[in-house]
Amino acid sequence: MRTGRLEAFSDGVLAILITIMVLELKVPEEPTFEALRPSLVGLLTYLLSFVYIGIYWNNHHHMFQLVRHVNGAILWANLGLLFMLSLVPFTTAWMDDTRFAQLPVVVYGINLLGAAVAYYVLQLAVFRRDGPDGLLRQAVGRDLKGKLSPWVYVLGILGSFVSPWLGMVAYVAVAVAWLVPDRRAERFVHDHALED
Amino acid sequence: MRTGRLEAFSDGVLAILITIMVLELKVPEEPTFEALRPSLVGLLTYLLSFVYIGIYWNNHHHMFQLVRHVNGAILWANLGLLFMLSLVPFTTAWMDDTRFAQLPVVVYGINLLGAAVAYYVLQLAVFRRDGPDGLLRQAVGRDLKGKLSPWVYVLGILGSFVSPWLGMVAYVAVAVAWLVPDRRAERFVHDHALED
Amino acid sequence: MRTGRLEAFSDGVLAILITIMVLELKVPEEPTFEALRPSLVGLLTYLLSFVYIGIYWNNHHHMFQLVRHVNGAILWANLGLLFMLSLVPFTTAWMDDTRFAQLPVVVYGINLLGAAVAYYVLQLAVFRRDGPDGLLRQAVGRDLKGKLSPWVYVLGILGSFVSPWLGMVAYVAVAVAWLVPDRRAERFVHDHALED
Amino acid sequence: MRTGRLEAFSDGVLAILITIMVLELKVPEEPTFEALRPSLVGLLTYLLSFVYIGIYWNNHHHMFQLVRHVNGAILWANLGLLFMLSLVPFTTAWMDDTRFAQLPVVVYGINLLGAAVAYYVLQLAVFRRDGPDGLLRQAVGRDLKGKLSPWVYVLGILGSFVSPWLGMVAYVAVAVAWLVPDRRAERFVHDHALED
Repeated sequence: MRTGRLEAFSDGVLAILITIMVLELKVPEEPTFEALRPSLVGLLTYLLSFVYIGIYWNNHHHMFQLVRHVNGAILWANLGLLFMLSLVPFTTAWMDDTRFAQLPVVVYGINLLGAAVAYYVLQLAVFRRDGPDGLLRQAVGRDLKGKLSPWVYVLGILGSFVSPWLGMVAYVAVAVAWLVPDRRAERFVHDHALED
Repeated sequence: MRTGRLEAFSDGVLAILITIMVLELKVPEEPTFEALRPSLVGLLTYLLSFVYIGIYWNNHHHMFQLVRHVNGAILWANLGLLFMLSLVPFTTAWMDDTRFAQLPVVVYGINLLGAAVAYYVLQLAVFRRDGPDGLLRQAVGRDLKGKLSPWVYVLGILGSFVSPWLGMVAYVAVAVAWLVPDRRAERFVHDHALED
Repeated sequence: MRTGRLEAFSDGVLAILITIMVLELKVPEEPTFEALRPSLVGLLTYLLSFVYIGIYWNNHHHMFQLVRHVNGAILWANLGLLFMLSLVPFTTAWMDDTRFAQLPVVVYGINLLGAAVAYYVLQLAVFRRDGPDGLLRQAVGRDLKGKLSPWVYVLGILGSFVSPWLGMVAYVAVAVAWLVPDRRAERFVHDHALED
Repeated sequence: MRTGRLEAFSDGVLAILITIMVLELKVPEEPTFEALRPSLVGLLTYLLSFVYIGIYWNNHHHMFQLVRHVNGAILWANLGLLFMLSLVPFTTAWMDDTRFAQLPVVVYGINLLGAAVAYYVLQLAVFRRDGPDGLLRQAVGRDLKGKLSPWVYVLGILGSFVSPWLGMVAYVAVAVAWLVPDRRAERFVHDHALED
């Protein structure tokens, strides 16, 4: 089975998610700076979630450059990842509306953790499909960043019980770490140009 | 006529449907667990409809791997299926808002039944276009799951008049049965690799 | 310039238009048949607009099978058509909310007329780009249906001043006439198979 | 890395942006011309933003015809452009709701300026990736229009402090200047047909 339609469908869902969040930004009722201020905070929250969806799109893009064939398990693992990500506009809006209250910040972290786990499961589904010599498995290697991120989310979730800002620091830190795009697949494709 | 644009358009519509449902989830007004609770029920309802759209995307994907040419009847049968599916966010929201009251659960079942019939009509349009030796007709075979599902929906609709939960059980059961992806097309492509 | 991205972008816009209209359908507040009734009328209105967007997608699809190269004029004529069609959810919602009052029905007709004119302008832009021997010009031929539709819209708009239902009859009639998909391009591609 | 998925994702986001703005248009509550009037002003505002998104899609389309390979910096520069453009529905709605009050018109100009800067950064990322002999760098040439537009936005933003209408004139003027599509890439591809 070809990967083309899976990539197109995922691109569609991610493109929608990344754009509908801005619909949650409440348009100020007055043409004043005071009325705009809550939207500016909302804008920063939206930026964080925009970056997260961008990171997942980036990594998804890299992953599927090394995937040649898709089976049912990969299709559903991919839908699982899309489901977790489709909740991001909801948890983002709650966090923003309540101005970073404790529970919403915890729930946002759980959402990020869920997406990370779903990505990991997708990777496992590809590994299993391709066998021990699969291209992706070789390219991913030790995957330090991928293995640490969930633990930083857990720290952030726990830290939110002390102060929501500890949670936010953790979530922003992971986003920044991933903003450096994942060059492993890139480098791998480059080094193994013959296989491509 | 090529199938490429029909697949791209269908992917677009299905990607939008699967993501806009989350917009129906009402963001809680308070940062408390009590305020979140109705959203958690809504989340499960959303998950069910997400899985249903995912199933249709999956099966649509498999179907069009065995369709080489498209005519006007197939285009409109496909739009008929997309129309039925585009009502799912509406019926899902009604069912969720009324907390699974009887009529909305019946209407949700009718919606699922309509989608199943539309899928069946699409299949017939492909059969007719391709003649008795068409690839899809050979691959679909007896199609037990496809033939039973509408009857389970009918049972669920009738059961909802006793208790809406009987309806929900039927709808969840069909979704679970289809979560096992439809391997017939996959297997067929594999077995007839020469024809591909 | 290739037509691929223009088709992909148009498919994206049309897929979004055809699905967001259902968001305008107000979810009934009570789980009763009385509460559902206005939504059923809305559903029929939505169906009409769904069919119209479907017709444009169909014809757009056929048109661009006979277009090999795109220039700036074609890009902007295409955006003009997409703009006219992007107003359909707005005019549909107004017509539905006011239960087919006179002015909204007139405005809906003007919207359909605008889309028909924009489609015609797009066709002219392709004709001009391809010269007198262009494939599309040969395939379109006399284009009776395309030339009559705008006049039926005008009749409908004028008729709405007598009774909105005269307008609706005209709009439904044109939709039905086009539901029979436009086989000219199809037949032409088939007859001139060598050129393809 | 191929440009295909980056183009598909960008098309998806731009297609959504260009269509969701119409959702901001408030459907009049009465079927009267008086009730429609504010929507007509809104329609003109929507048209301006529609044209701007159309211009960016056009230029993006032209740019990526001359880009063969994509790296991490280009991916993120592209996401930066999409982020700036995704704010357009928000700033458009605020400007329209407040009927072109001073601050919203200033903010709209800042948004346009931000998008222009992001486009420029994206161009620089491509230049750096392709080296001094890159196709895009040759095609873009002096890029007078690209270099002047930001300054006209700045003039518009400053002018808005005198009267918002000065700002609007500046924004409309830039849009009109770009409506003439950017033929440089087109001409370049044509002149260097051998390289293609």
